[in-house]
Amino acid sequence: MSEKKENKNIPASELRQDISSGDWVVIATGRAKRPDDFANFERIKDDKGIEGCLFEDPIASGQEADILIYEKSDGDWSLRVFPNKYPAVSRGRVSKNLSEGPYVAMEGIGYHEIIVTRDHFRQLAIMDTLEVAEVFDAYQQRFLELMNKKSVNYIAIFHNHGKEVGASIPHPHSQLMAIPVVSPYIQLELDGAQKYFKANRHCVFCTVAEYESEEKKRVVFENDEFIAFCPFASRAAFEVHVMPKFHSPYFERITDKQKIKLAEVFQKALGAIYKALNDPPYNFYIHTSPCDGKDYPHFHWHIEILPHTATWAGFELDTGIEISTIQPEVAAEFLRKQL
Amino acid sequence: MSEKKENKNIPASELRQDISSGDWVVIATGRAKRPDDFANFERIKDDKGIEGCLFEDPIASGQEADILIYEKSDGDWSLRVFPNKYPAVSRGRVSKNLSEGPYVAMEGIGYHEIIVTRDHFRQLAIMDTLEVAEVFDAYQQRFLELMNKKSVNYIAIFHNHGKEVGASIPHPHSQLMAIPVVSPYIQLELDGAQKYFKANRHCVFCTVAEYESEEKKRVVFENDEFIAFCPFASRAAFEVHVMPKFHSPYFERITDKQKIKLAEVFQKALGAIYKALNDPPYNFYIHTSPCDGKDYPHFHWHIEILPHTATWAGFELDTGIEISTIQPEVAAEFLRKQL
Repeated sequence: MSEKKENKNIPASELRQDISSGDWVVIATGRAKRPDDFANFERIKDDKGIEGCLFEDPIASGQEADILIYEKSDGDWSLRVFPNKYPAVSRGRVSKNLSEGPYVAMEGIGYHEIIVTRDHFRQLAIMDTLEVAEVFDAYQQRFLELMNKKSVNYIAIFHNHGKEVGASIPHPHSQLMAIPVVSPYIQLELDGAQKYFKANRHCVFCTVAEYESEEKKRVVFENDEFIAFCPFASRAAFEVHVMPKFHSPYFERITDKQKIKLAEVFQKALGAIYKALNDPPYNFYIHTSPCDGKDYPHFHWHIEILPHTATWAGFELDTGIEISTIQPEVAAEFLRKQL
Repeated sequence: MSEKKENKNIPASELRQDISSGDWVVIATGRAKRPDDFANFERIKDDKGIEGCLFEDPIASGQEADILIYEKSDGDWSLRVFPNKYPAVSRGRVSKNLSEGPYVAMEGIGYHEIIVTRDHFRQLAIMDTLEVAEVFDAYQQRFLELMNKKSVNYIAIFHNHGKEVGASIPHPHSQLMAIPVVSPYIQLELDGAQKYFKANRHCVFCTVAEYESEEKKRVVFENDEFIAFCPFASRAAFEVHVMPKFHSPYFERITDKQKIKLAEVFQKALGAIYKALNDPPYNFYIHTSPCDGKDYPHFHWHIEILPHTATWAGFELDTGIEISTIQPEVAAEFLRKQL
């Protein structure tokens, strides 16, 4: 009710531009639902539980040998990393040129790894701070190991939750793909950050973190080192970005202390999404500087959480302009209520 | 069997770069399925037929008055265009500035229209050439009408087939959205085309059409004016682009004769997808020059058809690099077999 009143002077449709990428989004509140309507998105229920789960005992179910394993005091494992059995890129040192006619192509070499946590039913949204920090620690260890490989120029770290968004195995797991090319989305953000710095002599992400922390209305949760907020130009309902408040181009340089601070903010944000939207499918991923030997002093690493409450249709695929049906300010307020 | 033999020397994974946008895709044939496996994607069956369909008798079911209507010789209508009852942009002449702090935003004004064909069960994939040409004619008429409006700088024309890809009403219909900003995807292609012309003194899309028509292996169907092919850097399995073989930046300048030629090639391509993949969900959309008063001599309009046979997951959302599990050459061969 109160939301309706607050929204009275808001136009039916708004075009907002992302400050770093330059992309546009449409916030179409004329099609608005109430915040709690988003929780009714119907999930695919296909988790048969621990029985038959391929990640419950990875070695026994035919996964490759562990690259990294963390153990608990009781001798059981808490996290393990192993190669993806069906990698999208193959291991190798030199990428063969596969160009043809006017087209550029190369062999897809690199590393594709799986990061699994112990408990089948304990997703990151309901973990405690130290458990989440351990996951970020594993991301960092694998990043540091792979970043110096000859064929690796970018490392994508991402997590799919729910079959609707690509998680073929329900057991909580993240993925890491180390690849020879810089991804187009990162390139857009790198270019945008460079351009903003040239014009303003200030990091665009620092500008955002400072403005949001002061403004408060889009903040979900923050501590002294990290901030979680619904971005001004959210591409999806309840999208949340988690960002260091200090300037840092390189995720892999995070300290142990910072990992705890990050874990606190990240878990609060993901936990709020989990409660507000009734355990929705989601993806999250880290955007950080390429590891191609160049410096990226004006970039600023961050994590993007994308809950899945709607379907991308022709307009989005056509234009790259996403249509969201809730204002980030209203979404953030609803998420804060879950804390 | 024969495909397996042919693929023997193909590496397990390939990185291909889109020649106009610069985007990368991964063709991961190590995860390959046989072409006919893609037909098994499970559809949402929610079409309750004509009864209760909102587009069977649009006026009676509360749609707004027609903007355009085509009639058949028997007096029934064959196609009609009316405003979207739930527009993502609102009608208006001047877009109010809604910028805030460091962010840029404006009122989302423009036009959002629905283009409906008569027969509930007759989608474009199974129409005859003249019926398809009439649809393109309607697109053109509405484009010509809206392109000179003050608030309109880009017109997106798109079609969603299947609930999985955003068609909330099963009755065949396309949509048109006329908006004040140029979309990011178009901007990428405009920039790429400009860059390619500068380096090669030739249109990048003409280069592609000429190369594909000569090379044949990725062609689905062509006549003397248009070509349909699976693009070298396909973002999705069985993606098809339909392109004029003559240089043309502006879709809206298509002649009546060309519309028939386009309809023939487009219908053959869409019909092949329909048969090969067992009526899959799909989106298609037109990429054409903005109507912002500037000239785009090096752009070249085309249609992109994106069948939906897989889910976009974290890696795609993270990086913008899509993973496809079938080579465009194998997909094109399979589509040609349906003709």
